[in-house]
Amino acid sequence: MNLRQDANQIIKESINRVLPDEAVKRALIESDLFGKENGRIYLVSVGKAAWQMAAAAVEVLESRINQGIVLTKYVHVQGEIPGVVCYEAGHPVPDEGSFRGAEGVLAMTENLRTEDTVLFLLSGGGSALFEKPLIPEEELSDITAQLLACGADIVEMNTIRKRLSAVKGGKFALHCAPAKVFGIVLSDILGDPLDMIASGPAAPDTSTCTEALHLVEKYHLHISAAARHCLETETPKSLSNVESVISGSVTELCQAAASACLRLGYEPVILTDQLNCEAREAGSFLAAIAKTHAGTTKNLAFIAGGETVVHLKGKGRGGRNQELALSAALGLAGMENAALFSIGSDGTDGPTDAAGGYVDGSTMDVLAARDIDIYETLENNNAYEALNACGGLIKTGPTGTNVNDVAVLLLSGTPAHRD
Amino acid sequence: MNLRQDANQIIKESINRVLPDEAVKRALIESDLFGKENGRIYLVSVGKAAWQMAAAAVEVLESRINQGIVLTKYVHVQGEIPGVVCYEAGHPVPDEGSFRGAEGVLAMTENLRTEDTVLFLLSGGGSALFEKPLIPEEELSDITAQLLACGADIVEMNTIRKRLSAVKGGKFALHCAPAKVFGIVLSDILGDPLDMIASGPAAPDTSTCTEALHLVEKYHLHISAAARHCLETETPKSLSNVESVISGSVTELCQAAASACLRLGYEPVILTDQLNCEAREAGSFLAAIAKTHAGTTKNLAFIAGGETVVHLKGKGRGGRNQELALSAALGLAGMENAALFSIGSDGTDGPTDAAGGYVDGSTMDVLAARDIDIYETLENNNAYEALNACGGLIKTGPTGTNVNDVAVLLLSGTPAHRD
Repeated sequence: MNLRQDANQIIKESINRVLPDEAVKRALIESDLFGKENGRIYLVSVGKAAWQMAAAAVEVLESRINQGIVLTKYVHVQGEIPGVVCYEAGHPVPDEGSFRGAEGVLAMTENLRTEDTVLFLLSGGGSALFEKPLIPEEELSDITAQLLACGADIVEMNTIRKRLSAVKGGKFALHCAPAKVFGIVLSDILGDPLDMIASGPAAPDTSTCTEALHLVEKYHLHISAAARHCLETETPKSLSNVESVISGSVTELCQAAASACLRLGYEPVILTDQLNCEAREAGSFLAAIAKTHAGTTKNLAFIAGGETVVHLKGKGRGGRNQELALSAALGLAGMENAALFSIGSDGTDGPTDAAGGYVDGSTMDVLAARDIDIYETLENNNAYEALNACGGLIKTGPTGTNVNDVAVLLLSGTPAHRD
Repeated sequence: MNLRQDANQIIKESINRVLPDEAVKRALIESDLFGKENGRIYLVSVGKAAWQMAAAAVEVLESRINQGIVLTKYVHVQGEIPGVVCYEAGHPVPDEGSFRGAEGVLAMTENLRTEDTVLFLLSGGGSALFEKPLIPEEELSDITAQLLACGADIVEMNTIRKRLSAVKGGKFALHCAPAKVFGIVLSDILGDPLDMIASGPAAPDTSTCTEALHLVEKYHLHISAAARHCLETETPKSLSNVESVISGSVTELCQAAASACLRLGYEPVILTDQLNCEAREAGSFLAAIAKTHAGTTKNLAFIAGGETVVHLKGKGRGGRNQELALSAALGLAGMENAALFSIGSDGTDGPTDAAGGYVDGSTMDVLAARDIDIYETLENNNAYEALNACGGLIKTGPTGTNVNDVAVLLLSGTPAHRD
């Protein structure tokens, strides 16, 4: 078995499976929208992958789509799509483009009929790109700043902000009613919480007015009477006109990796698709798994998806996937039958041109021969340089998708027992 | 299923299996020493569990043992053992007791014959408790201090110290030749490296003179001519008169946990028996596994053995097992079918009277009701107080064994599909 070749193949197959166009086509073909004969179909595609998702939907549904709007990040529109208007807007802070785009979407989906359908394609970044504030923009920025300053967490932030928006927290779906909203979601949040992804324009909201008002007290927020009125207005707790499908997420990324491993002769074990610990400790944990199972007679693949974190200390170059892989190299040292890679599905790990890193039992020796101290490298968050020196960088280029990361530990069975 | 009851049962069975006396009896019964009719048998038992191991050997072999010596830590001798002399000595720094004990052992095992056997029972702490320096004690302390000051790692320390000792690095086994040495080892080091446990008195040494002399240069060590002569003397690279069995270790601890889980209806998955990452990140990793597998229809148990580390920041009370468990509580929050415990097999986790901690999906709620902030608690390394407040401390009392730690994540299948 050639572990590096296998790794490359697994990476290719896994990412292909979670590309935005693949995700949309898969979901559409399984939906009843495909054969739908009555009513008009309006396409609304929002997020960093909005253009690709819209293009794929138009390719499948062709002229069945009456009209469409793409709302994505600057420089993300890649050409014209027949019948679709493309807006570009600010991210991560919403700007005029976000507001103009949202106005366009709301106008197009006004006064729809029961038999109509809004095909709502959603990907990461939608929270900033698709926005219509219910209070003046200046006050919205001010409240956001107050929340950040007092250390509110993301759930608390959203509890407030959903109520200050005309589209978040299920309100876009309410606006589309009585038309049906069919959502296809490319999830960039672990666990796929529909009311969190892009702040849930078409998802029932789990937060309440009571909670929102409690936060105003807890953090002594200064807000206008208009803002208070918004916080007192309840968000929808159920939406009978909505059907949503998570079609691409780290879960699919892990499953795709597992399928590829199986096809290559490894028995796959998906450990988790919600990994969120320190990158370097995750690498150490996976290497510890390698040590225990190294003597196996089977070919094994342990898969861990999610999004680890790095607490920057040094000034080196790297990303969480590169740091995870490099840290695992320590534990894999000297093992002939083990390799590990970790990649970001978007193809850009940290501020680098690499998607992630690959290491195996020989990595430590190669680094030593290049006079590279792995402990120092990790302390400086400089994994890129070390991996570059030992041929361990994985470069895919930007992939156009964003469904978190996956790490795979490959163990090939002992030669005596190999097929 | 009652997860807490199951956890208690698994803890009890796992620790029982790795008690020193159990380990010795199991190894002796499987050995051919039991039925041996010729030659004399000398018992040498060294380490923190030496007394229990010797008592068990005498119970099994009775009068077949000609003479025996126990060499253990102060206050660790629990009574008389027929035919066995017990010494107590210093730990972790060797003292007069260590030297006197070693002299006693060397005298007893002098001039043995080919048909004789030295039954050598070894447990953690043996490095300090069993020592005969080849240079004056003062110089040995001085060299150790020099090595510590320049940041030498444990492998480097041992490469030097083995050569300055008359018993370490396989030299005790050489002394016993031509008699056979049958070693039964209770391992306290991950991966069971025989030449590292108690500095390997009966194990071929993997380090070389060249490496030792290189370290003198690398760290500019000041050493006497006598010490240099020791470093130039090669340690044995193979020992034909030795047979060693690892009878108790974290591997057995994990296997015992797996057996107990299986008996209670869980499908056990041993992830690793060599976990050595940060305690709190290991907890987070295990909780991420719980989230992904929570919807399972099977009862699952994920087992991770090893010895995690804690980088102390706060001044609270706790230990690595308590910190691992408490950190996992974050990820388990709200899950009805998940629980996790982590324990040290010695029964004393950190400087506390607890063996470890237990958490489940309700732990976060209970902590909130007690006004305990888990993040603050973890920052202060104060897991003991938090676990104490929610009934999450596991107390076994000192167990008399020391084969690292084990953490077990229990997931009971969804009720609809439960047996």
